[in-house]
Amino acid sequence: MRTLRVIGIGAGNPEHVTVQAIRALNTVDVVFVLDKGSEKASLVALRHEICQRYITERPYRFVEARDPERDRNPADYGATVEAWHAARAVLYEAMIAGELGPGQCGAFLVWGDPALYDSTLRIIERIVARGRVPFTYDVIPGISSVQALAASHRIALNRIGAPVHITTGRQIADGLPPGADTTVVMLDGHPRFDHLDPDLTIYWGAYLGTPDEIVLSGRLGTIADTIGRTRAEARARHGWIMDTYLLRVPGEG
Amino acid sequence: MRTLRVIGIGAGNPEHVTVQAIRALNTVDVVFVLDKGSEKASLVALRHEICQRYITERPYRFVEARDPERDRNPADYGATVEAWHAARAVLYEAMIAGELGPGQCGAFLVWGDPALYDSTLRIIERIVARGRVPFTYDVIPGISSVQALAASHRIALNRIGAPVHITTGRQIADGLPPGADTTVVMLDGHPRFDHLDPDLTIYWGAYLGTPDEIVLSGRLGTIADTIGRTRAEARARHGWIMDTYLLRVPGEG
Repeated sequence: MRTLRVIGIGAGNPEHVTVQAIRALNTVDVVFVLDKGSEKASLVALRHEICQRYITERPYRFVEARDPERDRNPADYGATVEAWHAARAVLYEAMIAGELGPGQCGAFLVWGDPALYDSTLRIIERIVARGRVPFTYDVIPGISSVQALAASHRIALNRIGAPVHITTGRQIADGLPPGADTTVVMLDGHPRFDHLDPDLTIYWGAYLGTPDEIVLSGRLGTIADTIGRTRAEARARHGWIMDTYLLRVPGEG
Repeated sequence: MRTLRVIGIGAGNPEHVTVQAIRALNTVDVVFVLDKGSEKASLVALRHEICQRYITERPYRFVEARDPERDRNPADYGATVEAWHAARAVLYEAMIAGELGPGQCGAFLVWGDPALYDSTLRIIERIVARGRVPFTYDVIPGISSVQALAASHRIALNRIGAPVHITTGRQIADGLPPGADTTVVMLDGHPRFDHLDPDLTIYWGAYLGTPDEIVLSGRLGTIADTIGRTRAEARARHGWIMDTYLLRVPGEG
């Protein structure tokens, strides 16, 4: 039987890696790497660095493939994601069948936590449902950018006894959900703040956990322009940006 | 200047600890331990085990104190938590002033992630605001029980592009928030499911990350009684229980 391990490797700091993940990495014959294009080459390099640093007990090899192209601004978001996941399932299945011998173990390394806005588990479920390549798999949690954001700002995500809503830029395009106390926004490629209450407090962070980390916080109406300018400059300088932010309604606690 | 480090040590598996946390632990002169009573002695022992296993580079000492008593079912929740936090701030301040010499470093070890339903950061902010004992502090994120739950069930927290609402048992006493797709419930000392849609899917877990871990999942109306019985038996056997669950509305994705 083949084994797959889906390993969360943290938000960008190689030291986010857990002892559980290190132990899992040291059971692996093959590390599967999906290249998403040159713009994030520094992330690919960081993944190699993590393997070199922590896989010390046995030989392993990288198998790299090019991730299928994806329309980032589709007219039909659901159908586009569906087609992209289907294409990735076929690709991953071929990698597992072709590169992993019987009894061997392969790893998918996931930035952040495999449970939060990552498609690897859905792809694997699709391959299981197709039933052509038998394998077992497990999941190792990892530090997410949400946690790195909170740690860098030294804040709790929640107010006392209050909920936390984790969502995407797309979901708040028309405003925060009614009654939201704390909203964490991920995957916002084009953050706009002008339709939101200027009295919200924002905690923003980019390249979290890396030496390039930038964090800013304050009253939204006061700091939104600074965040927008800082974000644009950083994106131009690095060629890419990954950022996350938390919005909190005014009040105590 | 004194230094404090608030270190997330994971949800119960000693291997949830990150390399960042291990590095932080090895800068520490004093580990502050707040004993919350005998019922969770196994957690106190696990914290000692984590220190013994990972603090290898220098001597350290434990300073233990008894956490102030707290009414778990108060009439006025906000006022009770406020008074409890105030009492803890006085206690922590005395521990820092009395046990930490100038230039020394102390750690508070937090189960899960310091950002999620933990009061340590609020207590420290209170001590800073009191201004009697100067110190700097930082925060090291840790794997939360929410992530351990998702990993054990091998699920993503979110549906594709959809939000995740993290909340407490108290907040869903009258039902899930309107429009909730996925709700994660923490700190629910007395889970009741009979007021919720029986067609919800539940993913439940107790003692997550420990050798005693129990996970159950299924259609809420079908499995709620089994969860209730399992929970009562486990609580009686261990003398305490910590559990977390995720509720998802029916649908695809």
